[in-house]
Amino acid sequence: MMARLLPDWLRHYRGADLPHDLVASLTLLVLLIPQGLAYALLAGLPPQAGLYASIVPVLVYALFGSSATLSVGPAALPSLMTATALAGLSVVKPADYAAIAAMVALLSGVLRLVLAGLRFGFVANFLSQSVVGGFVSGSAVLIVLSQVPQLFGVSAHGSTAWQIAEALLAALPKLNVEALALSAAALLLLYAGKRWSKPLLRRLGLAEQRADLLAKAFPIVVVALGGVAVTALQLQVKVVGVLPAGLPPLRWPVADVEVMRGLLPAVLAIGLVGFVDSFFIAQSLALKRRESVNPDRELFALGAANAAAGLTGGFPVSASFGRSAANELAGARSQLAGVIAAGWMLLILVGMTGIFASLPLAVLAATIVMAVSQMIDLSILRLAWRYDRRDAAVYLATLAGVLLLGVVDAILIGVALSLALFIWRTSQPHLAVLGRVPGTEHYRNILRYEVETNPQVLAVRVDESLYFANIRFVRTRLVALLRERPATRDLLLVLSAVNVIDVSALQGLREMNRGLAEQGVRLHLAVVKGPVMDQLKRSGFLDELSGEIHLSTHAAMQALVAAQYADYVI
Amino acid sequence: MMARLLPDWLRHYRGADLPHDLVASLTLLVLLIPQGLAYALLAGLPPQAGLYASIVPVLVYALFGSSATLSVGPAALPSLMTATALAGLSVVKPADYAAIAAMVALLSGVLRLVLAGLRFGFVANFLSQSVVGGFVSGSAVLIVLSQVPQLFGVSAHGSTAWQIAEALLAALPKLNVEALALSAAALLLLYAGKRWSKPLLRRLGLAEQRADLLAKAFPIVVVALGGVAVTALQLQVKVVGVLPAGLPPLRWPVADVEVMRGLLPAVLAIGLVGFVDSFFIAQSLALKRRESVNPDRELFALGAANAAAGLTGGFPVSASFGRSAANELAGARSQLAGVIAAGWMLLILVGMTGIFASLPLAVLAATIVMAVSQMIDLSILRLAWRYDRRDAAVYLATLAGVLLLGVVDAILIGVALSLALFIWRTSQPHLAVLGRVPGTEHYRNILRYEVETNPQVLAVRVDESLYFANIRFVRTRLVALLRERPATRDLLLVLSAVNVIDVSALQGLREMNRGLAEQGVRLHLAVVKGPVMDQLKRSGFLDELSGEIHLSTHAAMQALVAAQYADYVI
Repeated sequence: MMARLLPDWLRHYRGADLPHDLVASLTLLVLLIPQGLAYALLAGLPPQAGLYASIVPVLVYALFGSSATLSVGPAALPSLMTATALAGLSVVKPADYAAIAAMVALLSGVLRLVLAGLRFGFVANFLSQSVVGGFVSGSAVLIVLSQVPQLFGVSAHGSTAWQIAEALLAALPKLNVEALALSAAALLLLYAGKRWSKPLLRRLGLAEQRADLLAKAFPIVVVALGGVAVTALQLQVKVVGVLPAGLPPLRWPVADVEVMRGLLPAVLAIGLVGFVDSFFIAQSLALKRRESVNPDRELFALGAANAAAGLTGGFPVSASFGRSAANELAGARSQLAGVIAAGWMLLILVGMTGIFASLPLAVLAATIVMAVSQMIDLSILRLAWRYDRRDAAVYLATLAGVLLLGVVDAILIGVALSLALFIWRTSQPHLAVLGRVPGTEHYRNILRYEVETNPQVLAVRVDESLYFANIRFVRTRLVALLRERPATRDLLLVLSAVNVIDVSALQGLREMNRGLAEQGVRLHLAVVKGPVMDQLKRSGFLDELSGEIHLSTHAAMQALVAAQYADYVI
Repeated sequence: MMARLLPDWLRHYRGADLPHDLVASLTLLVLLIPQGLAYALLAGLPPQAGLYASIVPVLVYALFGSSATLSVGPAALPSLMTATALAGLSVVKPADYAAIAAMVALLSGVLRLVLAGLRFGFVANFLSQSVVGGFVSGSAVLIVLSQVPQLFGVSAHGSTAWQIAEALLAALPKLNVEALALSAAALLLLYAGKRWSKPLLRRLGLAEQRADLLAKAFPIVVVALGGVAVTALQLQVKVVGVLPAGLPPLRWPVADVEVMRGLLPAVLAIGLVGFVDSFFIAQSLALKRRESVNPDRELFALGAANAAAGLTGGFPVSASFGRSAANELAGARSQLAGVIAAGWMLLILVGMTGIFASLPLAVLAATIVMAVSQMIDLSILRLAWRYDRRDAAVYLATLAGVLLLGVVDAILIGVALSLALFIWRTSQPHLAVLGRVPGTEHYRNILRYEVETNPQVLAVRVDESLYFANIRFVRTRLVALLRERPATRDLLLVLSAVNVIDVSALQGLREMNRGLAEQGVRLHLAVVKGPVMDQLKRSGFLDELSGEIHLSTHAAMQALVAAQYADYVI
C-alpha cells in the first residue's frame, strides 16, 4: 500500500545503479555550492537561501517529477526574475526580501499546482523556437550584464539593460581594484579551464568521460582558490561571510498583502516561464533517452518543488540545463543522485558553514558569467535568418524585449508576434490555378508545370484553411481570376489543403455561390476532407451548392468536360 | 483639369438619372430628420448636432467614397459609442459635450485618414462573422435599452446594460405617464405601419415599389403626429424645443488636452468600429450591384466625412444600413441623392427650424427602438450553432461583452477569442493514415475507406500547416502511430495540406528525422507544395533528410515498396 506512494524510480530501484548515482551526487554537490550561493546573490538574497533551495525542493521534485536526471534547484532565470521583482518594491526593506522571495516561490508553486490540475501544460506548445531562443539568449545577456557590477566590486542594480548600464556608470568611480583583479583572474582561469582542462586531463591518462566530468567541476576549484587568495592576501573585497549553521528553516513566509498583490504579475511570470524553461530542458534530456515527458506532470512536480522552496527558506527554483547535463554525464541513473546531493548539502549546512566565509563575491559572479554565457545560442537565429526572416525578427524582438523592457513583457511580445505572424501568413493564402499534366490524372499549378486547361472550367486549389481572416481575400482573388477568364462556366475549388472552414468562411462561400449562380457560373468542390465534409453536410450548404462535389480533381474535370459536350448535343 | 478632381459618378453623370436621384433624396430627407434628432439625443448632444451631421459629411463622402448608394451621416453605433465616451467624463460640464463630440469626430476622422494612408483597410478582414454578428446584435439591444428611459419620460444613463437597468429602476418613481402613453402609442403605430401599411397601400392601388417606399417613410408621419398630439393635448413631456436657425457652424472644436487624452481609447474605437461597420454595409450593397469596394478608399472617405463632421458642429458619423437600403429602394443612382438631401436639410435649417419645436422625445425614442431592433440578426448565430458551437460561443461572448463591459472591450474580446479559436483548431491537427484505394492511384484515410496498406511503410497525411503551436503535438502523434506499427521502416509524410512550415516546425522535423534515423526508420516527404519546397531547399533540410522527396503519394509508395523487394534481393 505504502509502496504505491513511492515514485516509480524508487520502487524499481536496482542496487547496481547506486554507485553511479553516488558519483553523480558529488558532481551535483560541487556545482550546487557555487551556483546556490551565486544565484541567491543574483536574486538579491542572503547566500544561504541558495543552499536551502538545493535541499527540500530537490527531494520534492524527485518524488513527483518524470525526468530521471533533471536537476531542479537554484537557476539563473528565476533568480533574475526574482531580483527584478524585488527591485520593483520601493517601500520594502531589503531585510524583508528573503521572506518575500519565499512567498513568491510558494505562490508560484501553488499557481502551478492549480494549473496542473486544470491540465494547463499544453501552454508550453504556444512558445515558438524563435521566442524561446530569443528569450533565453536575451536573459543570458541580461544576467551577464547584471554580474558586471560584482566583477567590478561595486553595487549597481536594475532590471533592464539600460538601468544596469546607467547604475554601473554612476558607480564606476568607486571601482574596487582588488575585486576587479580577482574577477579577471577568475574569468581567465575559468576560460582556460573550460578550454584546456579536459585535453590536459586526457593527456594525463584519464578516460574521456572522467576527464570531462572533472573539467565540469573546475568552477569549485576556482571559487576555493578565490577564498584562499582573499585570506592569504588579506584582500579588501566583499565575501560571502559567516552563514548561519543549521537545518533549513521550516516556516510559513509572511508578507504584507499589499506587497504580494503588487508581486502577482511576477508570480505569474515566474510560474509560467519557470515551467516552460524546465519543460524544454526535461524534453531535450528525454529525447536523448527516447523517453517522453508529460507536461502536466512536470508542471505539478515543479509547482510542488517551488512550494517546498517557499516553506523552507528558499526562493523560486527551476531546472538548470548545465547541472542536468553534468548530472547525466556523471552517470546519474535516477533522481537518487539529486537526493544524495541534498543529503551532502544538509551535512555541510549543519556542520561546515564556516568554509564559505571568505569566498569572494567577485569570483562567484565570474562563475555565473561563464555558466550563463553558454546559454546564448544563436543557431536558431541563424537558421531562421536563412529560412524565414520574419521568424528571425520574432527572435530579435523577443531578445530586445528582454534587454529593454523585462522578461515578462518580452514573453508577451514574443508570443503575440509569433501568433500574429501565423495569422498574417494564413490571411493571404496562395491560390493555384490547376491544369492537367498531359496523359496523367495529376493536376498541377499552371505557373509551375506544363499543363492543359479547359477554357470553360477554372480549377483553383486553395492552399489554406478557409476562415474569417482570409475568406474575403480568397473571394477577391477568385473574382479577379474569373474576370481574366470570361468564358468560364464552372468554377472548381480543389480543397485538398483546406483543413478547416469556419462559419465566416461558410457564409462567404454561400454568398459567393449565390452571386456566381446569378452570373451563370456554377461552383463545384473537389477533394473535400472528411471532417470538413461532415461539417458542410450538417450546415445544409451542400443543398444550396449550384454545382457538384467530386472525390478527386480528375473525376471533377472529367465530369465537367463531359457536361460541356452534353450541352452542345442539346 | 478641374474635371479630374470631380468624383467618377459626377463626371459621367447622365441626365436621365436625375429624376431617380431626386425622388431618393426626398426619401433620405424624411429618414434623416427623425434619425438625426434621435441619434444626437442618443449621443447626449443637442438635437441640431444630428441635423448638422447630415449635411457636410454627406457631401464629403460623396466626393471620396466608392459606394453609389451608401448613406453616411448620423448612425446608431457611433452615437452610442459617443454617449458612452461622454458619460465617462465626470469632470466635464454637459454644456461642453457638443465641442468634445465634435473633437472626437475630428480626431477619429484624422485617425482614419492616416490609417488609409498606411493602407490599413485590411484590418476589416480580421473580424469574423461571429464577432460582427454578436457585436451588432449586442449593440442593438444596448441601444434599445438606452432608449427605455426616454420612453418612460425619465432620465437614466449608463454605458452597460447593468448601469442602465440600475439607473432606470432608481428613476422609475418619477415615471411620466403622458410620455409613456405617447411612446406606447408611437410604438404601436410604428409596428402597425411596418406590418400593414405596405399591403394597405398596395390594396389602394399603388405599385409594389412605391408602396414599399411610402411604408419606409412612415416614421416621419408618426413623429409629426406626436408633435401634433403634444400641441393639441398640451402634454407635459420633453420636446425637441426651438433649434437655432442658420447654417451649420464652421469652427475648430476646442477641447481640453487632458480630456482628449482620456478620450483617445474612444477615438480609436469609434474610428475602427465605424469603419468596419460602414465597410460591411458598403460591401453588402456592392455585392448586390456586382461592384467592389476598396477598403482603403472607404477608410479615407469615412475619415474625411468625420473630420468634416467635427469641423461643422456635428459628431461621429457612419453609414446607416436602413437608410442606405431605403435610398437604394427609392431608386437612387448615385451619391447625388444624398447631396440633394443635404441641400433640403440646409434649407430647413435656414428657415424652418421651428417645425421641430414640439416634437416629443418619447416618440423619437420609439422610432430609434423600431429602427434598431431590425439590427438584431440571429441568423448567423443559428448557422454557427448548427455548424460549429465554438463559433456560436464567440458570437455570444461578443454579445455579452457589449452588454456587460462595453463596445470596445467586446470587440477586443471577440477578436481575441476568434483568433484563439483558430489557433486552437490548428494546434491539434487531424492526421490521416493513408492506404491505397485498390486498383487506383488514390490514397485515402484507412478509417474512412476500404484501402490497402503495406506493413513496412507508414503513410500519414498531415491535415494542417506545421508551425510552432502544433509541431510537438504532431511529433507525439507520429511517435504513437509508429509505436503501434513496430515493423515500419519508412515513414512517409504526405504534405498536400501543409501550406506553411515555420522555423519551429522545421527544427522539429530535423530533430524527428535524426531521431528516426537512429531507430532505423527513414523519413520521406510527398506532395510538397511549391512555396514550401522552395523554402525547405533554402534551409538545407533536404540534404539532411534520411529519405526522399516524391511528387505524389502513389509515386512514393511505388518507390518505397520497390525498395523493399530490392532489399530482399540483396
